Amino acid sequence: MAGRIAFLGPVGTFTEQAALAYAPAGKLVPFATIQAAARAVAAGTVEEAVVPIENSLEGSVTYTLDILIEEDRHFINNELVIPIVHCLLAQPGTRIEEVRTVYSHPQALGQCREFLERALPEVDLVASLSTVAAVEDLKGSASPAAAISPRRAAGLHGMDILAHGIQDKSSNATRFVVLAPTDHAPTGRDKTSLCFSFDQDSPGRLYGVMGEFAQRDINLAKIESRPTKQSLGEYIFLVDCEGHREEPQVRAAIDGARRQTSTLKILGSYPRWQAGEDRRAP
Amino acid sequence: MAGRIAFLGPVGTFTEQAALAYAPAGKLVPFATIQAAARAVAAGTVEEAVVPIENSLEGSVTYTLDILIEEDRHFINNELVIPIVHCLLAQPGTRIEEVRTVYSHPQALGQCREFLERALPEVDLVASLSTVAAVEDLKGSASPAAAISPRRAAGLHGMDILAHGIQDKSSNATRFVVLAPTDHAPTGRDKTSLCFSFDQDSPGRLYGVMGEFAQRDINLAKIESRPTKQSLGEYIFLVDCEGHREEPQVRAAIDGARRQTSTLKILGSYPRWQAGEDRRAP
Repeated sequence: MAGRIAFLGPVGTFTEQAALAYAPAGKLVPFATIQAAARAVAAGTVEEAVVPIENSLEGSVTYTLDILIEEDRHFINNELVIPIVHCLLAQPGTRIEEVRTVYSHPQALGQCREFLERALPEVDLVASLSTVAAVEDLKGSASPAAAISPRRAAGLHGMDILAHGIQDKSSNATRFVVLAPTDHAPTGRDKTSLCFSFDQDSPGRLYGVMGEFAQRDINLAKIESRPTKQSLGEYIFLVDCEGHREEPQVRAAIDGARRQTSTLKILGSYPRWQAGEDRRAP
Repeated sequence: MAGRIAFLGPVGTFTEQAALAYAPAGKLVPFATIQAAARAVAAGTVEEAVVPIENSLEGSVTYTLDILIEEDRHFINNELVIPIVHCLLAQPGTRIEEVRTVYSHPQALGQCREFLERALPEVDLVASLSTVAAVEDLKGSASPAAAISPRRAAGLHGMDILAHGIQDKSSNATRFVVLAPTDHAPTGRDKTSLCFSFDQDSPGRLYGVMGEFAQRDINLAKIESRPTKQSLGEYIFLVDCEGHREEPQVRAAIDGARRQTSTLKILGSYPRWQAGEDRRAP
């Protein structure tokens, strides 16, 4: 029996598209929030969850980073990258010049900023909870409206596509991570995500931690900071490094980092994404 | 004549509160977006703009970071920190147990997550464009609704305050920056913000740039990354260091950093915020 896979819903989102690519035979279960999807993994009601973590235009999905920092009952087990193609949808028969309101998730509005300023400079932009909830919002709109949504949402909701591929950069892509009760066994082409913090003076001491990786020639693929939520100016750092946590050099660098930090948590070791590859064991 | 100061509106937001604290005698002009406020400085229709840059719970305001990275016609001239106290507002006579929908800016919804899960676990959370636009949204709601907004918005809109200080952490504070055509003259207690990028392998080479500051004992106050918007995995780094760009050691560190980066831009040198202080020259 194929496993149950949670994803950030509703049906029709890019996260569903990622979950379908990751687990074509899985039973996909939509959740209303990233947190609810992650909690389902922690509670054992699903095997895995697919959630967005980073977009090439908008940057990190901070909600996902915060859940990774706070929650100990799931790990990053895999990652995958999906190209993001936004469409402008409207009720059948609507002409683009009639549109007065455009609904979408704030990240999608941000990803189509240049198109909106060029093609629809006078419209009201209204935030929706997801690119698919935007279609529901447009149905309820008093004035002629459109939604920025995936192509798949047009078919699901019987909408016209007024414009296709309206994102500012054709290279727009989102990275998703798969959360599971454990991380992945070594494959020889892995990366490791970790987070750490300091009692004080965190940006100053970050340099020392980075040295643990630099002196062992371990490449860092990403560095991100999040607030500790205690006071302004204190941060938790999230770092992705090449290699698996079970490799001796990676383990030594992490041990060295642990000695210089007040908290350090391994978020998971997992195979690095390579385009065109099938992530899932047969 | 007092200068014209742009702020992220509408009237009643925390940004207006920051602008009032910064320029009590200024003529405050609300703008609908951070970008419009910044453009007004670049166009010379206002002297300065006050925009949020970082919150102690939610992290960076990425929209402001992107504008600082992209725009060359304004600089950070000053900063100030304002404590954030959220209230739950509703139409007069509404009881909290009747509330079915809560409107607010997504950052404010995020900052009150624990309160919402405890006091209003069953409600729908709906995104608004600002904490004050949320009051307009609640007025138009079909079911009993509330908004998470500043106290000042209750008086302006004739709303009841159902709960006060509902943010998850009492230390919740937001840092604002003042954008102006030039940065600030040295005061002896300054900081400098800069951003830089690399042609490739950016997190690996960040270590070398940080060494330019570390070897001169220049403390880094903040490190943040933003996507280059070209492809996933390439970043622009934003760094705040102590000292003014005209101080010899700071200048030497920045010159050293410039040699290791493909682009480097100074976003401004300006006085470090100290609580209780008056920012504005008399």
